[in-house]
Amino acid sequence: MRVAHQFAPPMSALLAGLPGITSAVHVPAEDRWALPTDVDVLFVLHGEGESDARHAANAAPRPPGWPGQVRLVQLASAGADDYPPWLWEAPAVASASGTTAIPIAEYALAVMLAHAKRLATVTLNPGDAWPDRQMFIAQPLGLLHGRTLGLVGLGNIARRVGQLAHAFGMTIIAARASAAPSPDAWITTAPLADVVARADHLVLAAPITPATQHMINADRLAAMKADAHIVNVGRGGLIDQDALLAQLDQGRLWASLDVTDPEPLPPGHRLIGHPRVRITPHISWSNPDINRAIMQRLVENIGRLAAGQPLLGAVAA
Amino acid sequence: MRVAHQFAPPMSALLAGLPGITSAVHVPAEDRWALPTDVDVLFVLHGEGESDARHAANAAPRPPGWPGQVRLVQLASAGADDYPPWLWEAPAVASASGTTAIPIAEYALAVMLAHAKRLATVTLNPGDAWPDRQMFIAQPLGLLHGRTLGLVGLGNIARRVGQLAHAFGMTIIAARASAAPSPDAWITTAPLADVVARADHLVLAAPITPATQHMINADRLAAMKADAHIVNVGRGGLIDQDALLAQLDQGRLWASLDVTDPEPLPPGHRLIGHPRVRITPHISWSNPDINRAIMQRLVENIGRLAAGQPLLGAVAA
Repeated sequence: MRVAHQFAPPMSALLAGLPGITSAVHVPAEDRWALPTDVDVLFVLHGEGESDARHAANAAPRPPGWPGQVRLVQLASAGADDYPPWLWEAPAVASASGTTAIPIAEYALAVMLAHAKRLATVTLNPGDAWPDRQMFIAQPLGLLHGRTLGLVGLGNIARRVGQLAHAFGMTIIAARASAAPSPDAWITTAPLADVVARADHLVLAAPITPATQHMINADRLAAMKADAHIVNVGRGGLIDQDALLAQLDQGRLWASLDVTDPEPLPPGHRLIGHPRVRITPHISWSNPDINRAIMQRLVENIGRLAAGQPLLGAVAA
Repeated sequence: MRVAHQFAPPMSALLAGLPGITSAVHVPAEDRWALPTDVDVLFVLHGEGESDARHAANAAPRPPGWPGQVRLVQLASAGADDYPPWLWEAPAVASASGTTAIPIAEYALAVMLAHAKRLATVTLNPGDAWPDRQMFIAQPLGLLHGRTLGLVGLGNIARRVGQLAHAFGMTIIAARASAAPSPDAWITTAPLADVVARADHLVLAAPITPATQHMINADRLAAMKADAHIVNVGRGGLIDQDALLAQLDQGRLWASLDVTDPEPLPPGHRLIGHPRVRITPHISWSNPDINRAIMQRLVENIGRLAAGQPLLGAVAA
């Protein structure tokens, strides 16, 4: 099949050598929504990390004649929320969902452990006094072992977080949109209200939809344990950030947020540098294997399309 | 049995209520080596975290009449290296080895993940520019998945680190003092030279003895991968620190050191604040359950002593 992509121009040569790909053409990112001719597959990435990207992407006008000959739109992102709505008029749209579950789950464990062990404060800087052992008996470091992990969402990322947390000896409860039973023996499903109330660490790994927008609202936050730690690797809009700031300012809750609303946060936003908050700039997906993993997804889906099989990461309109 | 301890005076009441303990008496820490009369069990802690503690402990004179009626010396520490040599004239000495394996292993994973994910640099501070996504494609964050963990030592701590690393999908090789086979299916034993050369993360969890002093010397360090990360949760003396500094100054290796030689490091020591080093002040043992776990070890060993069974954490002279 013939593939158009918006990535670095040398990727054309890489792609053209892969199984099922007869040719590959580079389209500049600024022209990503121009309908290519003689192309079967559009390999695209939304403007994550570009200023006002969501709005620009969603406002992009429908190209005349869309979808033309395009048979598959393969997104290079796990999320499918930042794309223009007319994209789904193509016969098939698939995301890269799942290709970054391992790095994102590792990020979640990294911030859970950094929080429990107070790494930012126990690391010595020049001039610091060597603290007395008694301080760490009176105010001990935390453990993941024996604590409760709450998962919001139960997709690839949440399941991988659960698998790792299980090794640490955590109790794991998950709230999911469907009524399907837990896919893993070590994860118990429960209503969101229970998950929120029982969690010592609450990991948000749900997609953003009208139903999940601000699902972690003022009432949910108020129902959490005072010392609970929220980890958001989903989308910033899952949390009502103003309600979160109100709780934090009362000395309740802790948060590690890899996603915010909006992204980037405006300079000087109060979440940046808040003593109870760690903000990272949407980087939990980053890993040395990402190009290979996403290209593998493209090749796999091209093969599945040719064979008439269900796509990996298929995204309904 | 009758127990003497050097901890907070209220612990006497706690201890006296435990199975097998008929009475408990508090001895001030400064008199910890005064031979108590009418005592069967001495429950002691060396001066970890006290200035020049090792030398003071080892220089403590043998109390006249030692060991008197003492049948068991139960150490409240996992290490047995900071105690005076005449202690072993008592009929039995047992350490708390194993009671802190879970928190120390969690600390090891915490610093491995913090290193891989560059947490200290990706966390935004007020005034920081929001970095571009491209930066995290060009210089991706690391993964534990697929990387190699080298273990030096294969006691309770190392095995727990191995169990956690296995869940992350790491390859695990261990060098141990004995020729015994690996106790865990996911850990392969290998000579120290191989472990050092292959490790992406090298976790030191061996006791300090004449045989292990400076086992990680200039030659071992030079044989490591340029970007390898050393985690020391054993004893500072396992590493030749001058040789480590020489490597670090050449832009080779990274280190997270919870133990140093000496402890505390002198103010202004170059390891503190070195751009390739994280120093924490011997705190990896700290956890909310520590008093309970160590008292459980005491009670268990008192029961074993009474029943003539082997002690947990028995330490040979």
